Amino acid sequence: MPQQGRRRHVSITDVAAEAGVSITTVSHVLSGQRPVSAATTAKVRKVIAELGYEPNQLARGLRLQRTNTVALVVPDITNPFYPLIARGLQNMLGPAGVQVLVTSTDADPSVEDAAVQQMITRRVDGLAFAGYQADHRRVAAAAEVGIPVVLLGGLTPRPGIDVVSSDDVAGGEIAAKYLISRGYQRIAFITGVERVGSPANRVAGYRKALRDAGRPFSPSLVVREEISRDGGARAMARLLALRQAPDAVLCTNDVVAIGALDGAKARGLKVPGNVAVMGFDDIEFASLLTPALTTVSIRPLEQGEAVGRLLLERLDGSAPRQAQRILFDPAVVARESA
Amino acid sequence: MPQQGRRRHVSITDVAAEAGVSITTVSHVLSGQRPVSAATTAKVRKVIAELGYEPNQLARGLRLQRTNTVALVVPDITNPFYPLIARGLQNMLGPAGVQVLVTSTDADPSVEDAAVQQMITRRVDGLAFAGYQADHRRVAAAAEVGIPVVLLGGLTPRPGIDVVSSDDVAGGEIAAKYLISRGYQRIAFITGVERVGSPANRVAGYRKALRDAGRPFSPSLVVREEISRDGGARAMARLLALRQAPDAVLCTNDVVAIGALDGAKARGLKVPGNVAVMGFDDIEFASLLTPALTTVSIRPLEQGEAVGRLLLERLDGSAPRQAQRILFDPAVVARESA
Repeated sequence: MPQQGRRRHVSITDVAAEAGVSITTVSHVLSGQRPVSAATTAKVRKVIAELGYEPNQLARGLRLQRTNTVALVVPDITNPFYPLIARGLQNMLGPAGVQVLVTSTDADPSVEDAAVQQMITRRVDGLAFAGYQADHRRVAAAAEVGIPVVLLGGLTPRPGIDVVSSDDVAGGEIAAKYLISRGYQRIAFITGVERVGSPANRVAGYRKALRDAGRPFSPSLVVREEISRDGGARAMARLLALRQAPDAVLCTNDVVAIGALDGAKARGLKVPGNVAVMGFDDIEFASLLTPALTTVSIRPLEQGEAVGRLLLERLDGSAPRQAQRILFDPAVVARESA
Repeated sequence: MPQQGRRRHVSITDVAAEAGVSITTVSHVLSGQRPVSAATTAKVRKVIAELGYEPNQLARGLRLQRTNTVALVVPDITNPFYPLIARGLQNMLGPAGVQVLVTSTDADPSVEDAAVQQMITRRVDGLAFAGYQADHRRVAAAAEVGIPVVLLGGLTPRPGIDVVSSDDVAGGEIAAKYLISRGYQRIAFITGVERVGSPANRVAGYRKALRDAGRPFSPSLVVREEISRDGGARAMARLLALRQAPDAVLCTNDVVAIGALDGAKARGLKVPGNVAVMGFDDIEFASLLTPALTTVSIRPLEQGEAVGRLLLERLDGSAPRQAQRILFDPAVVARESA
């Protein structure tokens, strides 16, 4: 049967591109639930009319026409924490015939937005999103076109956006309490440059523990750096160069902690003899380091499985209507480095 | 503009599903270049006529209508080797605005086939495929619909299928030669269960090195196990239970080598004092183990970048017509474990 002259399906992405705005802006114009300038609204409505875009058709298509794929957006695929999340998702979704597509963003908000927009265009059946600054704005566009979304990170759920996370404030608190109980006096924290999301919540927990123990908080002991092994090494170098250097260093994740170990080694210092180092995540390799890394387990594999279970429930309609939150309790894993 | 009554685009996947055959079989019927039974051919042609499928339209669409996504299919996303391949791909493709979608298959051929078929349906602009048994058959369906394909693994290129790999035979050979030069007498090899692909080629190189050194080859010293940390531990247990146990063990990758270290530790043996262990890949964590892992570097990041470069050249038409092969020389990285 000839298909000549058949018009290509017009998507929300086409509207956004033609109007020169983001998909999120188009969604806002359509939903009317968030403010958009009159000029932008007029431009978007004009493009919608010209292209013959039908918003409801897209949402219907998403529900009726399964692609059997789910997207996982992560900040850094080379951090072994995220492959474990992917593994957990796949444990749940694989047997249901759903493929997991992973994409890595370097935690760059513009790359994150582009990744989510791509996934909307590709009509994934579900979206799991992890960023250092887990932010509803990053996934709002997907939720608004009806794609079930799970946000990995420490935030409250919103309509259409479920949340799976560890309790990051509690994690920072138990880690700092553990170091205090071990007798460390000047406890530093290597964190990311942004002041939101999991890293910031862990710092908040650390400050709470210091406060509860009657310890002073010293801003110079909180170092903000790129979240990477190199970033950890640079931050450690800065801390060790302080006139009053720390005797223990909490790191926002295990990869950063490995960098901190590099930094201590570069100065000829012994861990934990001269300075203690403690991480977060409990990646598989944490136990294989020398010294074996003391860290906080937040059970990535189980978090990934929880995400997969939530998405399956959203897809088969068995989930409750309201957005869900699944919280994993963090636990100190005592080893040799602190 | 109403779009009611618009027929959904008929894809090769629809034809395959309706006819109850694989996409590859449909491609073969269309291309006529490989034998398909008369009954199957008749069934596929009937479905093509009924659904009004237009094969050329698909190939044309793939070229004209870029999705700006490239797929990377890997056997195990939790093996840090593959995230480095992904990182390398992204280093090249990210700046060109192309997103990398990673999917993990557990090296199960049926999952691999399903992943490739999904990627064809999703109209990726390019496909990079890594499996323990890199096999042209796994990617033939993508190549036949005109998607540029790069196979990671030790095989020869074919029309439409470029190859990026390390020289695995040479890798096995230099690894075994290194152990022989260090004075080890009974050198074992822990490999995968399949007798094709990179693992098999490494074993072939190991046998060549033994032969060149006038050493006997003992089949009982080649253990075939699942390619994983647990598999490495099980294989090591079997080797150490032999009446004549090995004094050195080559492992098909570093993750398996970590399992072999587990196995030695479980028997209370010192590495390398009681038994030497050597891996392949040189993942980042190899240098952080105790003892630091002696291994063979095959430069995953650079391999990933080479894959990305090849795909970009295919996409912008600057690549030569014939299929390319880029071969990375392996190199022994001498550390403590052997």
